[in-house]
Amino acid sequence: MGKKKLFSKPMIGIDLGATKIFAAVADENGKIIATAKKKSAGEQGREAVLDRVADTALKALVDSGVSIKKIGAVGIGVPSPVDIKTGVAYLSPNLGWKNVPVKKDLEARLGLPVFVDNDVNVGTLGEHVLGAGRGAGCMAGIFVGTGIGGGIIIDGKVIHGRNMTGGELGHMIIVPDGPLCGCGNRGCLEALASRIAITRDVLAAIDKGMPTMLTDMLEKNTDRIKSSVFKKAYEAGDELTVTYLNRSAWFLGIAVANIVNAIGPDIVVIGGGFFEALGAQLLPIVRVSASHHYFGPAGKDMKVVLAELGDSAAALGAAVFASRGGI
Amino acid sequence: MGKKKLFSKPMIGIDLGATKIFAAVADENGKIIATAKKKSAGEQGREAVLDRVADTALKALVDSGVSIKKIGAVGIGVPSPVDIKTGVAYLSPNLGWKNVPVKKDLEARLGLPVFVDNDVNVGTLGEHVLGAGRGAGCMAGIFVGTGIGGGIIIDGKVIHGRNMTGGELGHMIIVPDGPLCGCGNRGCLEALASRIAITRDVLAAIDKGMPTMLTDMLEKNTDRIKSSVFKKAYEAGDELTVTYLNRSAWFLGIAVANIVNAIGPDIVVIGGGFFEALGAQLLPIVRVSASHHYFGPAGKDMKVVLAELGDSAAALGAAVFASRGGI
Repeated sequence: MGKKKLFSKPMIGIDLGATKIFAAVADENGKIIATAKKKSAGEQGREAVLDRVADTALKALVDSGVSIKKIGAVGIGVPSPVDIKTGVAYLSPNLGWKNVPVKKDLEARLGLPVFVDNDVNVGTLGEHVLGAGRGAGCMAGIFVGTGIGGGIIIDGKVIHGRNMTGGELGHMIIVPDGPLCGCGNRGCLEALASRIAITRDVLAAIDKGMPTMLTDMLEKNTDRIKSSVFKKAYEAGDELTVTYLNRSAWFLGIAVANIVNAIGPDIVVIGGGFFEALGAQLLPIVRVSASHHYFGPAGKDMKVVLAELGDSAAALGAAVFASRGGI
Repeated sequence: MGKKKLFSKPMIGIDLGATKIFAAVADENGKIIATAKKKSAGEQGREAVLDRVADTALKALVDSGVSIKKIGAVGIGVPSPVDIKTGVAYLSPNLGWKNVPVKKDLEARLGLPVFVDNDVNVGTLGEHVLGAGRGAGCMAGIFVGTGIGGGIIIDGKVIHGRNMTGGELGHMIIVPDGPLCGCGNRGCLEALASRIAITRDVLAAIDKGMPTMLTDMLEKNTDRIKSSVFKKAYEAGDELTVTYLNRSAWFLGIAVANIVNAIGPDIVVIGGGFFEALGAQLLPIVRVSASHHYFGPAGKDMKVVLAELGDSAAALGAAVFASRGGI
């Protein structure tokens, strides 16, 4: 109806995760018209992973019915810091990658221009352009899952930072000398409020003999608790679960306030697998904690909301990133 | 020698502080050619303060020998959140100001275009364009004095944030539920590492009977310790002073790391009266602490340096802000 289109041509967006590849073909309005999934299979080596990425993109393309000639570009988010100019992924322990020229290698496979960024950065961009952050000039995104990733958008652009680590909100120090984080530091947000951090605290409490319905829900000798298990126990009012999850939400609120006090975004969007499962329960607590820690007027009319795009955020954001020519 | 000039015309920059007004005339290269000072005298009321601001600017102008017709514009930094579009200062407890239309009132007095921003924002801008941050695209400034102010510059522009509180780095929460801050929150950087915070801890230690040479240096019943007094005691190796000041530098390093992990600036500049006095002693500790808390590669080649412009930073930054038409 004459409405301005988001893309000049359909785009392919890819989310390369540690365990699975998700590809989507998006039309000019940013609407997904076909998707495909494959396992990442990082253990098969880098060439095999890149082959599977290309296969997944082409499978989605075939399903979409769009001719490859009509595709504008391919965007991909990878679980690594990325030099967005060269499209090289520096380091992905999960994939066993070091300095992989993703752009060059995928362009050779697909015959299309490819643009590469970090998966959380493109996820943030997806939420900004097509999800919960639509219309905001400046946005912070926090994605809570196994770990905690983040992204910051100022005047519509993702902040990459000097060493391509911009937006690493999971590694802001919230409690100096606090619990050990996977990054080697102590007291990072990720060490306090990620699924891994909560699991660490819950298992330690169980070891001490604290009663919880989780005991019956866990497999023997597990060091993993799924978000769906936490959700079930939380909804059943299990005191141990409720206590630890509420505490994690309080820490998240401090991180939200720190970002708001430092940058003053228009909106903070919280997503990730853990918050997809438990956002309805935990978001109100995050908001109270954030409000408790906002500086003076910094939190006035501040929106702290749940992400909207779920698993599609990174692929859609990658498509947006590609449509802009990788900036 | 054909070098591109910073300003198209000479500018007037003003730093309106809680106690004094400092005005400078800067030539097209951003070099100060004349300055003037007066007391702010906030107790005499807003009109009197604005009269004195105008008088100070004109005194510097007369001393500069530059005709008022040749001046491009006037910039002023005020100790208040500011709506930079309208030039209204929201709230300055020290001056007793609430919603003061500084731009309008000073334009009426001076007959020149006036541009208004927060004093710490223009101080950061001054350091970015003419001081320690020259040439950096993205910079964070932290100014440690009685309190702690901050500013963030991304792609050359000061981040004002949704509620004009962007860059309030002194109010990032560093120790949840820590000491009470003047802002009403607990554990803000300002409540841990400002001169007021250190003074609070030192006086409490003296009350407990801890020996320190400060006891003989302080006036009776004082609740104020000057930066110069701290410097003297620190240099003499006074254990109480050294311990508390080093501790404050450690907290500052956490704040630096949080900003670096979140945004990844090219440089962090630390200034303010307290660091002008004690920067040589404390900066190395700030750097070690920051490095301790950087996320992975975030701190690679990160420069954490002392400010260079001293008391002139805000006036020069205000001149830069004016030269850009208030953006």
